[in-house]
Amino acid sequence: MEEKKKHGWFHRKKNKKPAHQHHPFHAKEGHHLQSHHSQGKHFGGKKLRIIPLGGLEEVGKNIMALEYGHDIIIIDAGMSFAGPEMLGVDFIVPDISYLEARKHNIRGMLFTHGHLDHIGAIQYVLPKLGNPPVYANKLALGLIKSRLKEFSLDKSAKLHLVDETSKLKLGDFNVEFFRVNHSIPNSMGVFIGTPVGNVVHTGDFKFDHSPAIDKPADFQRIAEIGRRGIDVLMIDSTNALKPGFCKSEAEVAAKLEETIEKIKGRIIIASFSSLIGRINQIVNFAAKNNRKVFFSGRSMVENMKLAEELGYATYPKGVVRKISPQANSMPPSQVLILTTGAQGESLSALTRMAMGEHSSIKIREGDTVMISASPIPGNELAIVNIINNLYALGAKVITNNDMDIHVSGHAHQEELKIMYGLIKPKCYVPIHGELYMRKGHIEMIKTVADPQLMVTCLDNNGDVLEVSKQGVRKSKEKVPASDILVDGLGFGDIGSRVISDRKIMSQDGIVVMLFHAYEESKRLISEPDIISRGFLYLKESEEMSQEVKQMASKAFEQITQQNRTIGLKDLKNELERNISNFIRKRLRREPMIIPIIMYA
Amino acid sequence: MEEKKKHGWFHRKKNKKPAHQHHPFHAKEGHHLQSHHSQGKHFGGKKLRIIPLGGLEEVGKNIMALEYGHDIIIIDAGMSFAGPEMLGVDFIVPDISYLEARKHNIRGMLFTHGHLDHIGAIQYVLPKLGNPPVYANKLALGLIKSRLKEFSLDKSAKLHLVDETSKLKLGDFNVEFFRVNHSIPNSMGVFIGTPVGNVVHTGDFKFDHSPAIDKPADFQRIAEIGRRGIDVLMIDSTNALKPGFCKSEAEVAAKLEETIEKIKGRIIIASFSSLIGRINQIVNFAAKNNRKVFFSGRSMVENMKLAEELGYATYPKGVVRKISPQANSMPPSQVLILTTGAQGESLSALTRMAMGEHSSIKIREGDTVMISASPIPGNELAIVNIINNLYALGAKVITNNDMDIHVSGHAHQEELKIMYGLIKPKCYVPIHGELYMRKGHIEMIKTVADPQLMVTCLDNNGDVLEVSKQGVRKSKEKVPASDILVDGLGFGDIGSRVISDRKIMSQDGIVVMLFHAYEESKRLISEPDIISRGFLYLKESEEMSQEVKQMASKAFEQITQQNRTIGLKDLKNELERNISNFIRKRLRREPMIIPIIMYA
Repeated sequence: MEEKKKHGWFHRKKNKKPAHQHHPFHAKEGHHLQSHHSQGKHFGGKKLRIIPLGGLEEVGKNIMALEYGHDIIIIDAGMSFAGPEMLGVDFIVPDISYLEARKHNIRGMLFTHGHLDHIGAIQYVLPKLGNPPVYANKLALGLIKSRLKEFSLDKSAKLHLVDETSKLKLGDFNVEFFRVNHSIPNSMGVFIGTPVGNVVHTGDFKFDHSPAIDKPADFQRIAEIGRRGIDVLMIDSTNALKPGFCKSEAEVAAKLEETIEKIKGRIIIASFSSLIGRINQIVNFAAKNNRKVFFSGRSMVENMKLAEELGYATYPKGVVRKISPQANSMPPSQVLILTTGAQGESLSALTRMAMGEHSSIKIREGDTVMISASPIPGNELAIVNIINNLYALGAKVITNNDMDIHVSGHAHQEELKIMYGLIKPKCYVPIHGELYMRKGHIEMIKTVADPQLMVTCLDNNGDVLEVSKQGVRKSKEKVPASDILVDGLGFGDIGSRVISDRKIMSQDGIVVMLFHAYEESKRLISEPDIISRGFLYLKESEEMSQEVKQMASKAFEQITQQNRTIGLKDLKNELERNISNFIRKRLRREPMIIPIIMYA
Repeated sequence: MEEKKKHGWFHRKKNKKPAHQHHPFHAKEGHHLQSHHSQGKHFGGKKLRIIPLGGLEEVGKNIMALEYGHDIIIIDAGMSFAGPEMLGVDFIVPDISYLEARKHNIRGMLFTHGHLDHIGAIQYVLPKLGNPPVYANKLALGLIKSRLKEFSLDKSAKLHLVDETSKLKLGDFNVEFFRVNHSIPNSMGVFIGTPVGNVVHTGDFKFDHSPAIDKPADFQRIAEIGRRGIDVLMIDSTNALKPGFCKSEAEVAAKLEETIEKIKGRIIIASFSSLIGRINQIVNFAAKNNRKVFFSGRSMVENMKLAEELGYATYPKGVVRKISPQANSMPPSQVLILTTGAQGESLSALTRMAMGEHSSIKIREGDTVMISASPIPGNELAIVNIINNLYALGAKVITNNDMDIHVSGHAHQEELKIMYGLIKPKCYVPIHGELYMRKGHIEMIKTVADPQLMVTCLDNNGDVLEVSKQGVRKSKEKVPASDILVDGLGFGDIGSRVISDRKIMSQDGIVVMLFHAYEESKRLISEPDIISRGFLYLKESEEMSQEVKQMASKAFEQITQQNRTIGLKDLKNELERNISNFIRKRLRREPMIIPIIMYA
């Protein structure tokens, strides 16, 4: 958690970086060093620069810029959720200072689909970049509109509807789209033509021959795009370590339907509110089995309302009801509750049910809870806690470990190989995933790729790939691409110092000591006061409290008698050091120490 | 994180419990309510009481008491590591207040094996219980001795060596042991005979026909014990949700040997220091391939030293060296480093290597790091972070996902069925695992068990199972069995209030405000001072700081002018409320607020 302060924002480096790793430096025009890949050959002329500003050091926060001459286009603008080590941080948005400095060149923003890790930073990005035009298809545009509305930005935004047949001319960029599958309907990949080369960006994708609402990915179209000659393929790595094929949504649907039919008691299904196709299917299975469906959780209600309006969800009238205690009083065999919280999020509807704190739903003997999701790394403990609590309340819990009631939306290894075969690029660049996933992706594709395929690992966000008439190479340039931390309403007003202070207090609390002394003589007027939080119960540990006070008094006298003219800052530092040492030795704890000195 | 204060200790309830769940109450002699299982039949006479005080709400902290008349024996006394939600807590030990009150009845403590979740609370338990005799086999006893030595308790302890042929008479208890397999050599199950019934406790176990050092589990002996007629089988649930058989340690050894042979560069293997058999094998494979072995990590060095002394580890002289920078300068093909830290522990040797902060080892291009372990839930993110950093330094990383370089030490479903078949108890009680694992265990065993088998779920630590001549039943009694939190050198001196204060500060920091006022008039002498930590950079947010000060001044004046005689406590509460509200509205954050008032 080192700290970089740039442009008035506080940035963080990912968790902890190896101490002897290179630090990114600022982009300098004209400062093009020869990279390994260029192998010494001349690399001049006008260049296309491809710059992932997010999505390389995380699963999330996806955003990529393409720059050619005085034209820039941006693909996606996502957020990521902060890991538990980012204490108190709600979410993270990308650093777009590079784009801000060139905002007059921005010709448009393209969105591949409507997930938050692709659209969730738009309220931050759009105003900063001078409100460039936005291009997205129906569902993504609907979700972008709701997001912007939350921040009162929907009126001013320039929103343009596109689909897989659209062709855009954005400055020197020719943009087209192609249909893929994913865990939200209407996901698209992007083709970008430039005077120096062609690029394909897969977005998040999988191949599903029997998706829930969508049509299957358009193999013909992808092959046709491949035949144009693609210089660079930027490709999803989320599941690159998983062998075989990702199962179809149809298999999940069949298993869910079969299970819903068999269960006699009340059914509660937790899933993602963006899995619109699956949720639509579940509602229809419920209807077939004479169950009413109650949506629980704000995003579930809102997304499904939008999906219905846009025609993505269709089910018989009267099946879906507002969540209410009615769901407790109706015959169990007539109730199905669809809820958010499948990741164990602390304030989610499922968590509240498991804690017995949900305003409408009381979990009870005979209930079956199905968790139609897989845990995102870091959420395992929270989910296990929920499952234990559901069992303690008498429910039976079915997870994806017990039967196939969830599939991922990301291509497994065999699908990645198919995308490679359809596009046949000159250069293959894994994106969307942490370093270890992308390294694994590279090893995997090398086992099947043409020997002459160039496979490039862009290690960090802000790395730059250059395409010129001479070919493709990794630049030695780095563009600023740290994380902007969002806590409450503040963007970037907390940084690593704030986080590390929180860390200290989270481990051992804080001890505030108040010293009253005469300014002239520096003698204490009375015993110091001690106020602590998160340290120990001083009430319980009166003895300890007395020890600390006595020790601190003595330290104060010693320090000031040795140096009668000691400055306030030095005195505070000395006191802090003394008190810290004492507590560390006495209790093996290291609370935050704040000495306050009041002179009379 | 509710709070119970009993006997001067602070106890916690597991994470969050459902709000309408029953709270445990104290054991009352004579207060025996009819349980479901007793089915109304008379249940009198002298009883055996089986009381797991730990190991039911966690994986870890295993301890079980058996009480018959005036005799008590204890099986294991383990610790558990605190989850990340237990801020600053180092580990957790069991609540033994029930045993403390009856310490004169304790006839002995038996230990099944030497893992910390079975012996790690001994330094806490032994002195509290009046130093009862300890029975364990060679390796466990060696590890218990080292643990006690750390706390200067080894001299006074009454340590007795037993083995699988020993027969103990401890009060009315007849105790014997039987050989099982586990991830540490020399693990044993326990047979306990009493006048009212026989009990078998499996300990942690698996069946391995080709273990690393041990002999295979003793099927003949277990069957012979089963033929005596067993009333209660207490059985390990850790892997009860995993189908099939747990693989043999021999398969891991073969894969490790093959991999070590193939790799030309330097090899770093991270594993558990208690996997003495596996580590012994790795050292021998290294020797065969002309590699020197460097042990890294204190527990690795100490455990292997003990293992060598006790004859559990045998390898050619001169193969193992002290860790030193020599491991960087020797030819890579002659170096193998065995390290702790396979769970991503923050101060472990592997973590320091990955961060580039290890004093001797520098990870570099060409290194292969093998993680011979599986992540314990909650550690996934830390491990992923390490893997990313190792890749960033140029290493290749092999995990158990890539090839079988780790197996668990706990029985899978088919092995549990075999144990059931060998013992054929009247009552089957899953232990060692969280509620959802034990519920799954019950469902699984019911699919194969005799219809008349009684399967009992003891929901919580402190639940009591009673055995009398009439049979077995779950008592409605509960024995105190909360968690004792250990932070630094203090046992139980922090409780849920301390933890919840840490939580608040970890999320939004702390704001201390100093008000200087005249005591009589309650008018402020000057503007209040503000000191914050983990809140925001007030330097950066001078404006915010001024706003808070102005608001706080105004609040102080208003409160005191409305009530000139307001007490200090009420004034502080009012100020805190006002400042909190202001900051919540302004920034959507909720730091800890401490107002301090200094009267002149």
